[in-house]
Amino acid sequence: MPRPMTMAEKILAAHAGLSEAHPGQLVECDLDLVLANDITAPIAIDVVEDLGHGVWDADRVCLVPDHYAPNKDIKSAGQTKRMRDFAHAQGISHYWEQGRAGVEHALLPEQGVVGPGDLVIGADSHTCTYGGIGAFSTGVGSTDAGVGMASGRAWFRVPETLRVELVGELPAYVTAKDVILHLIGLIGVDGALYQALEFGGPGVADLSVEGRLTIANMAIEAGAKAGLFEVDDVCRTWLEGRCERPWTEYHPDADAAYARTVTIDLAEVEPCVAWPHLPSNVHTVAESRHIAVDQAVIGSCTNGRIEDMREAADVLEGRCVAPGVRCIVLPSTQDVWRQCVAEGLMDVFVDAGCVVSTPTCGPCLGGYMGILADGERCISTTNRNFVGRMGAKTSEVYLAAPAVAAASAVAGRICLPSDLDPREE
Amino acid sequence: MPRPMTMAEKILAAHAGLSEAHPGQLVECDLDLVLANDITAPIAIDVVEDLGHGVWDADRVCLVPDHYAPNKDIKSAGQTKRMRDFAHAQGISHYWEQGRAGVEHALLPEQGVVGPGDLVIGADSHTCTYGGIGAFSTGVGSTDAGVGMASGRAWFRVPETLRVELVGELPAYVTAKDVILHLIGLIGVDGALYQALEFGGPGVADLSVEGRLTIANMAIEAGAKAGLFEVDDVCRTWLEGRCERPWTEYHPDADAAYARTVTIDLAEVEPCVAWPHLPSNVHTVAESRHIAVDQAVIGSCTNGRIEDMREAADVLEGRCVAPGVRCIVLPSTQDVWRQCVAEGLMDVFVDAGCVVSTPTCGPCLGGYMGILADGERCISTTNRNFVGRMGAKTSEVYLAAPAVAAASAVAGRICLPSDLDPREE
Repeated sequence: MPRPMTMAEKILAAHAGLSEAHPGQLVECDLDLVLANDITAPIAIDVVEDLGHGVWDADRVCLVPDHYAPNKDIKSAGQTKRMRDFAHAQGISHYWEQGRAGVEHALLPEQGVVGPGDLVIGADSHTCTYGGIGAFSTGVGSTDAGVGMASGRAWFRVPETLRVELVGELPAYVTAKDVILHLIGLIGVDGALYQALEFGGPGVADLSVEGRLTIANMAIEAGAKAGLFEVDDVCRTWLEGRCERPWTEYHPDADAAYARTVTIDLAEVEPCVAWPHLPSNVHTVAESRHIAVDQAVIGSCTNGRIEDMREAADVLEGRCVAPGVRCIVLPSTQDVWRQCVAEGLMDVFVDAGCVVSTPTCGPCLGGYMGILADGERCISTTNRNFVGRMGAKTSEVYLAAPAVAAASAVAGRICLPSDLDPREE
Repeated sequence: MPRPMTMAEKILAAHAGLSEAHPGQLVECDLDLVLANDITAPIAIDVVEDLGHGVWDADRVCLVPDHYAPNKDIKSAGQTKRMRDFAHAQGISHYWEQGRAGVEHALLPEQGVVGPGDLVIGADSHTCTYGGIGAFSTGVGSTDAGVGMASGRAWFRVPETLRVELVGELPAYVTAKDVILHLIGLIGVDGALYQALEFGGPGVADLSVEGRLTIANMAIEAGAKAGLFEVDDVCRTWLEGRCERPWTEYHPDADAAYARTVTIDLAEVEPCVAWPHLPSNVHTVAESRHIAVDQAVIGSCTNGRIEDMREAADVLEGRCVAPGVRCIVLPSTQDVWRQCVAEGLMDVFVDAGCVVSTPTCGPCLGGYMGILADGERCISTTNRNFVGRMGAKTSEVYLAAPAVAAASAVAGRICLPSDLDPREE
């Protein structure tokens, strides 16, 4: 009998061809997918070419132009060109041109490219997102991604697992984003350093897959190597029509050993805002009502899925963004964009005075499409609020859920939807 | 009896309080509007403040964040902030926030801010656009715009007028863009240097106001100070519900003196492409079919109005942009954007694999949202194809009408809509 294992241990063991794996063990694994974007791919491609051969499997390398694309400047134009030329030369099947792409971590699950049980590395910190559908996925440097693209293999130190036990039920106006901000506020930005976060417990069933992806996306903001949800019926239903290929479910053993367990009663989670300049600087929205904002950003790999768009539109319908405030809405993929048109959300956004952009990471990383000037404050559904993250060093980023960001755009200061005046009928 | 005058002479004389004006005369005029954008406004604002007072009339200064907005980078964020702060401090009524704005020269006529007979200066070369509805409007330097904002006055040397007599009828598949490219090809980029282009003749009646704005927009590309169309019933109808304030029509005298007259038989105009690197390097589309493109841009102050969007969508419906090609669609204003949603054009664009951006000048001036890498070729509905205009110095820009740009995006090389394979039903 192998020792009892956590989800992370099981996935790594299986991909290393081992019957068991334990924390601290170095394992060399077969990868299912390797990902890079327009910032990291050019470096990874250099590595592949330096190694003197092409990609190990043209169906298992994903290249997504999303960070500075559509091209911000001549430099980014050169980067996307390098990626495009390489993708065509190598016959990469998972390359999406600008206009057909989206934000990588929203795109890959949506398009069924990544599936449960996959082992994925990506040259982007938020590659951990796919844990929302039960994959072990993690961010690596561009050089490691390049070696992975060439060889299909990577080594890992098996992480300890921190179990997050979710119990109770979320209040109607509290979201997955609040859960992950609450957790990071609780354990800190190094609270799960090089650990796998494993989310479980009876509270999980009520979380949509979109919500799980949001939570897993920010695992890295607690220092975690990965953030994992077990596959359940909610997940299986979501995967129907998306992931058409076979996948493997890995469930933790009942007696698996955890580094520690943190229990969160969802009923007690309040709408949260992470103040500058760390995602762990978490306050309630109630404590944040005095903070005026110049900009709101609704989108990103954290909160740019259709559920997020609906939550924002629900608040913005019949209302207007405050004078002098920019509200930038970035549906994360072309499919989400199309769905926003179909559901009438685009009309709501434009009538409310929002900027609606084509899918791009843009402002989240200080790329473009909404950069902050000196002293400006932004409430954002993105995942990082480090110094200067979205622009000038003296600017400030406040992280929150889509409904809170939308309400704050209307009020011109941080608030809850329920704080707003009744909408015009 | 005053001497017979052209449109330009009449408008300048009236605004100088004179009964007549002749070419070469220096006149000091009262302005109706002064315009600046996020690139030029900060410089103009410095001038206003250096002069020690505010704007002469808060209802006659227009400030539009459209060139690098939504903010491309920290520098542009500072520029839009400077403009916003000034607009609020001065109570400028014609300031539009990002998300409520659009490309300045599309926005001002659409919103009825500019009207026939107006005398307008703007710190942007394509301010001449408003000649499409009978205004004398011209681009000036930021310093001159600043003095205009502070004083409401500017001096002009009265230009000679070049009369463009339009006769005959445009073939169904030929557009206003082809007419202006044809003219510039005929007379050259200095063919109307410091002259006013006055468009008239029986062919005008068939041109939509959108088409006239497209033609007037590119007057500067022939070196002209302005490009003017008389107000007729087509224009009056267009202005209904847009320009609610009184305006004045100026019609040229039958015996006005022209520097020269160029006659264009519209029936003989063919679909045109201006090859690099001058708008006068005009060839027919038929002569351009060997040219492969990497990108198409459909939008800008030249061709981003609803008529342009419809022409592009008409070609793209049921078709897909060629693999490896980006097709970037930029509706010029929020109203055009909203109309694209309402008419189903957004679905066509996204289904075809286009990038649809929020309104911005973006790629036209090499700003962002579609910059070209070394050696890349773009077919564009914009107005300039100078060396490096849209990105790298070795990139190339080909100017054309929306339907030609859309067809070329589908084919991956320059072509007419009629060259395409039948669409999928």
